[in-house]
This record gives sequence, C-alpha cells and structure tokens, in this order.
Amino acid sequence: MSAHGSFVSDNEKYASTFDKGHLAIPPAKKLALVTCMDARVEPLSQLGLNLGDAHVIRNAGGIAQESLRSIVISQYLLGTREIAIFRHTGCGMLTFTSEQVRKVIRETHPGNDAVAHAVDKLDFSEFSSLEESVKADIQFLKGNPLVLKETPITGWIYDVKTGKVWQNSSSKITR
Amino acid sequence: MSAHGSFVSDNEKYASTFDKGHLAIPPAKKLALVTCMDARVEPLSQLGLNLGDAHVIRNAGGIAQESLRSIVISQYLLGTREIAIFRHTGCGMLTFTSEQVRKVIRETHPGNDAVAHAVDKLDFSEFSSLEESVKADIQFLKGNPLVLKETPITGWIYDVKTGKVWQNSSSKITR
Repeated sequence: MSAHGSFVSDNEKYASTFDKGHLAIPPAKKLALVTCMDARVEPLSQLGLNLGDAHVIRNAGGIAQESLRSIVISQYLLGTREIAIFRHTGCGMLTFTSEQVRKVIRETHPGNDAVAHAVDKLDFSEFSSLEESVKADIQFLKGNPLVLKETPITGWIYDVKTGKVWQNSSSKITR
Repeated sequence: MSAHGSFVSDNEKYASTFDKGHLAIPPAKKLALVTCMDARVEPLSQLGLNLGDAHVIRNAGGIAQESLRSIVISQYLLGTREIAIFRHTGCGMLTFTSEQVRKVIRETHPGNDAVAHAVDKLDFSEFSSLEESVKADIQFLKGNPLVLKETPITGWIYDVKTGKVWQNSSSKITR
C-alpha cells in the first residue's frame, strides 16, 4: 500500500473546509525558516506559526548552505527579512559520516560503476554537534554577500521527545 | 517586531499537550515528499499525513535535483521507499527568469563586486510549466543511479486558492 493512495481522499476533507484562498504569496511574517526534513519536525505548529506566515526550507539536517538559492529568492523576490535556523535533537545527521553513507550505497549496488561515480561526488553534510552546526550556518549566512545585511538570523533547537524549543546558545552573533 | 520573538511562548503551548515523543526516526509511511518553500503550502495537513509519517524536503519550487543529497539519506539510511513531488499553483518560480533575479540583486548592491560574482554563479531553477517541471523532476529521479529502482515516484499539484490537490497528468512514467 503506497502512501500516495490516500492523498486525494484525505485532501478532499482538507479542501472541504479550506478558507485560506486569500493568502498572498509574500510570507505575512517576512520569515524564512530553514529546518530538517525529519518526519518528527513540523515547524509551523511547533513555533506557533500559521499557514502563510513563513517560507519553509527543509533538507537533511536543515543545512543553510544548501538553501542559498531559496533564501535569495525569498529575500529579493518575496520580501522576507528574517531567517531562523531550526534544528532538532535525535537528528540522523549526527549519526554517520559521508564515507559510511558512501559505503552503504556502494554495497547496495555491487559492481555498479555509475553508482560508485555518482556517490563519490556527493557530500552528505553531516555534523557532530547541533549547537556548532547552527552556529556555522549562521556564520555562513552572515558572511555571504547575497544575504541582506541587517537580517536577524537566529538558531533554535527542538526536542523531539518533549516538543520543547529553545534558542541555540551560540546563535547570537553580531555581524 | 521580529517573528522569532514569540517562538518560545507559542512553543510552550505546543509542548504542554505534546504526546508524540515516542515517534521513531524512520518515517512511518516510508515516504519522502519534495515540495516548495511557499508559505501557503503545508503538506502534512494538505495530504492527510501525520507527524512522523514522511520526510519533508522543501526549497524554492520544490526542485528534486537540488534534493538528491536528502533523498539519498532518506532512502539508504532511513528506509523511505516512495517519493512524491508536490507543486502548487501560483508558484513564484513561474514568474521570473534567473537573469531577472540577478539584475534585481545587482541593482540592490550597486558596485559590489562580491555580490556580482556570487550572483553569477547561482542558477535559480525557475520553470515555465508546473506539469512539465513535475515531469522533469520525476524523469531526473528515475534516471538517477542513486535513487533506488522500483521507487514509486508520483507528482501532485495543489491549488492555493481552493486547497484542492490533483495528480499531475504527466506523472505516471514507467522506468
């Protein structure tokens, strides 16, 4: 049974009470969130945001460096003026190295040269500390000439066991 | 007033009734969703998914090519076996060209060589058709040696004015 099999019927229920068709394309709170793809993360409810409030950029780990294209579009074309980096406890990115992932992939496709070649080109951007990775992302964004100066950039950590959020201790960096 | 000013107080309400601390890191429905950062998109409620069901990868447009690192981690380390591409009507990516964005950015920073150099290296991955861009993403994933063969990959379009979802007409592609 595929997950997509129920998309249409479940969406019919959602659409039957939908009343957000008036929302404009620029995010109401002028906020761009960068967070992890983790299935236990749902940043709107966890941070008290509503549909329409924020751009939500997500990838494995919530890596801001990979999100630069999106952040630039968010700021220059759609008017966001604040960035929040939202990491979480129990992140898979704390549990492996790029070389270990490459080995798993090569072993899944023994003798496959196309796979071996493709996997060698991928950096998996793992990290060993949530706090330090948030700090590194904030420093990257603050140092990047394309990110608008004076953009408040904060870092946050969410606990997947308790639902609680706190501000990253290393996230208050002046430019 | 910054958006992040209310994160802690709003999160306290969320955490006070939180009962999802038991969720495991692998997504329960073995699904990886790729969708746009647009503020009007919230794929869990719009597709009838629950917290813990799916990896959610988001960027400007919901471009799968930019998501390959995340998809590989999702499949090989966290066991997802299905991918859904979820685009939406009224997408900003339909409204500009990369050259137009570069011009806006250069004009924001007149005479700034660091900006001019950085912006020339960015491709903004705009598209001119939702349906064709979904199809192109599915073809990219099906042709990539790192994506597990036999992965069902479907494409969906969400209408931001009505809340309705339908399957992309070009999304049923056999490998």
